[in-house]
Amino acid sequence: MEINGSRLQKDLTALADLARTEGGINRLTYSDAFWRSCDFVEQKMREAGMTVRRNALGNVVGTLPGKGPRKIVMGSHIDSVPNGGMFDGCLGVMAAIEAVHTLREQGLQLEHSVDVAAWAEEEGVVISGLMGSLAYCGLPLRPVQLEKMGQYGVTEADVAACRAEGPLDYSLELHIEQGGILDAEGDDIGVVSAIIAQKRYQMEIDGCANHAGTTPMYLRDDALVKAAKLIVRCSELAPQVDPNMVITVGHIEVTPNAMNVVPGRVRFTLELRAAEEASIQAAYEQIMEEFGAEIVSTQLIQQERAYRMDPTVMEAISDAAASLGLRSRVMPSGAGHDTMSLAQVTRPGMIFVPSVGGISHSPEERTAWKDVENGANVLLQALLRLDGLGV
Amino acid sequence: MEINGSRLQKDLTALADLARTEGGINRLTYSDAFWRSCDFVEQKMREAGMTVRRNALGNVVGTLPGKGPRKIVMGSHIDSVPNGGMFDGCLGVMAAIEAVHTLREQGLQLEHSVDVAAWAEEEGVVISGLMGSLAYCGLPLRPVQLEKMGQYGVTEADVAACRAEGPLDYSLELHIEQGGILDAEGDDIGVVSAIIAQKRYQMEIDGCANHAGTTPMYLRDDALVKAAKLIVRCSELAPQVDPNMVITVGHIEVTPNAMNVVPGRVRFTLELRAAEEASIQAAYEQIMEEFGAEIVSTQLIQQERAYRMDPTVMEAISDAAASLGLRSRVMPSGAGHDTMSLAQVTRPGMIFVPSVGGISHSPEERTAWKDVENGANVLLQALLRLDGLGV
Repeated sequence: MEINGSRLQKDLTALADLARTEGGINRLTYSDAFWRSCDFVEQKMREAGMTVRRNALGNVVGTLPGKGPRKIVMGSHIDSVPNGGMFDGCLGVMAAIEAVHTLREQGLQLEHSVDVAAWAEEEGVVISGLMGSLAYCGLPLRPVQLEKMGQYGVTEADVAACRAEGPLDYSLELHIEQGGILDAEGDDIGVVSAIIAQKRYQMEIDGCANHAGTTPMYLRDDALVKAAKLIVRCSELAPQVDPNMVITVGHIEVTPNAMNVVPGRVRFTLELRAAEEASIQAAYEQIMEEFGAEIVSTQLIQQERAYRMDPTVMEAISDAAASLGLRSRVMPSGAGHDTMSLAQVTRPGMIFVPSVGGISHSPEERTAWKDVENGANVLLQALLRLDGLGV
Repeated sequence: MEINGSRLQKDLTALADLARTEGGINRLTYSDAFWRSCDFVEQKMREAGMTVRRNALGNVVGTLPGKGPRKIVMGSHIDSVPNGGMFDGCLGVMAAIEAVHTLREQGLQLEHSVDVAAWAEEEGVVISGLMGSLAYCGLPLRPVQLEKMGQYGVTEADVAACRAEGPLDYSLELHIEQGGILDAEGDDIGVVSAIIAQKRYQMEIDGCANHAGTTPMYLRDDALVKAAKLIVRCSELAPQVDPNMVITVGHIEVTPNAMNVVPGRVRFTLELRAAEEASIQAAYEQIMEEFGAEIVSTQLIQQERAYRMDPTVMEAISDAAASLGLRSRVMPSGAGHDTMSLAQVTRPGMIFVPSVGGISHSPEERTAWKDVENGANVLLQALLRLDGLGV
């Protein structure tokens, strides 16, 4: 049984057209383009044979009844970042609809009921990230989130009504990789092992600002030279600690930042991400051991725990890929996804397909149509395998 | 014969009081404080027995006639940077007046006539650096400088009238070091060997901006890591090429400079200074050899040649210091001075005294009164030695 690739391509393109602008895809949650797109998703769910639940929160959830009440949910999001691409999120929603459409065309009823969800506001541009999937999972939203949602006419009753009906056995999310590993390595499918943990620090290194002409090298205390040593060291340290770890100094501010003054102060961000929180801790401790004397302030400004995918679901995805003759690779996800919400209430899994050049959050975001079709087929086959494990 | 240290301290303090503000000394050329201070300098020159020439350009030049028309000029500037200190420039002017005052009190007439000059606009904050000394030396000013001066009522006739009268045999400038070498090494006097050359470049290193979560270390092309390697390397390279060389990356701009994006581009300034132009060239070539493949653009935005001090004048200064029991050190000047103009028309020399902590261009700028007195005595003794060489 295979999904209809040309129908999926047509639907993804039609959905993109509803939010296409000169700068890229603009489908911010609660924009006109967002609501138009929700209507389109609802229509496609109904065409695939599902009943649909919606309310002011912006989730669109279709249900295909199974033999019993236990559920498998497949989904992702349709909201975009400003000037985003057409695959981020939308692929997982439309491929799930296509998988259900294929099941219905084949007249196959599963043991599980299947929910297909387009969760609102994954990107967090308008209210706060993962809002729709948190509501679906019955996880608490913070007062500040509820208040902001209220400004868009979303009531607490709407939030409560979003909660999934029936017990959830598994979740599956198909998504573009948004990184360049599959593309660079020539793999077809990524079997996500975990959504990685991260810690973000704001740090400061002090030196002594001084006249760049009259201060000889041996009397300098150059904050930028010290920060540069840390930046170079971090780029070497990351793979030594953990092959899947990344360390990034992305933001830097030099004071006084004048061409003829020895830099007196450097403020910078240090972001550490890894599937193992222990790796982040180990790298941070190593950096503090080597540079602690020069770092005059360090402040943890954000942290996310790691979310491990379920081994049973990972195996179902790997087997599905193998049965289709596709090359798969087990890999962590460096970006956050709705599956972070699902991981807190059910057994989660994620499927990646290649992003050309690793580009996303950009109108240049691209995934080959062959990979779109492969991903949807793996999603369908993984669903069948999980359903086949019994309820 | 020794200068009157308490009179010099009193005069320097009184001059500072005419331009003192909450933020520091503010005596920008053509400000009210500047003209008040010119009046004060003129008065002190007359008290020391000199005739005085002034005009709208802002130079104040006193002359003490000698037995013949050949001249030695001693001088510096009184204009300050915004929120500057009380010694930068003023020391050289007031110590020269004090030296002449001492000669007159002793009833000593020299072979040479002596000019004492307060040259306008050395700092270049208002019009353009070294303007007053260039006019004194009869060196050409650029049309844009003349036009800006015109806005302050300075005519070309004023510029021409500033030219030194009579043949100049030597120039002497006493100045605070503005760096920390004398202070750190415990030396009393710096015998300047050269005002060093410099080249300033604007450079750019490109990488590939990418998602900091999804782009593994081995697939990154991080422009900031590459720039950091260059910054660290330059700090090591400078002393390897030339012990008196300095290399500074003072200004840096990262794009997009976002904490969760791998830096895609770094623009930065690279400033190289050395007494030998060949050292600058050698260091630049080494940097281009090692990093040329990563530097996507490089633009020379400023350059200054080196100005070598005259060996006879250097020897007169060294001997003067030794005769006073002072520890001296031959050293280059990393900063520019009026002596750069004088070096183009006569045999120049410069005397440095220690700056506490190497601080200047700041209200924190400080030189001990003992060092002020030492500097003025070395200036007087060097003058006597140069005069003693005959006309």
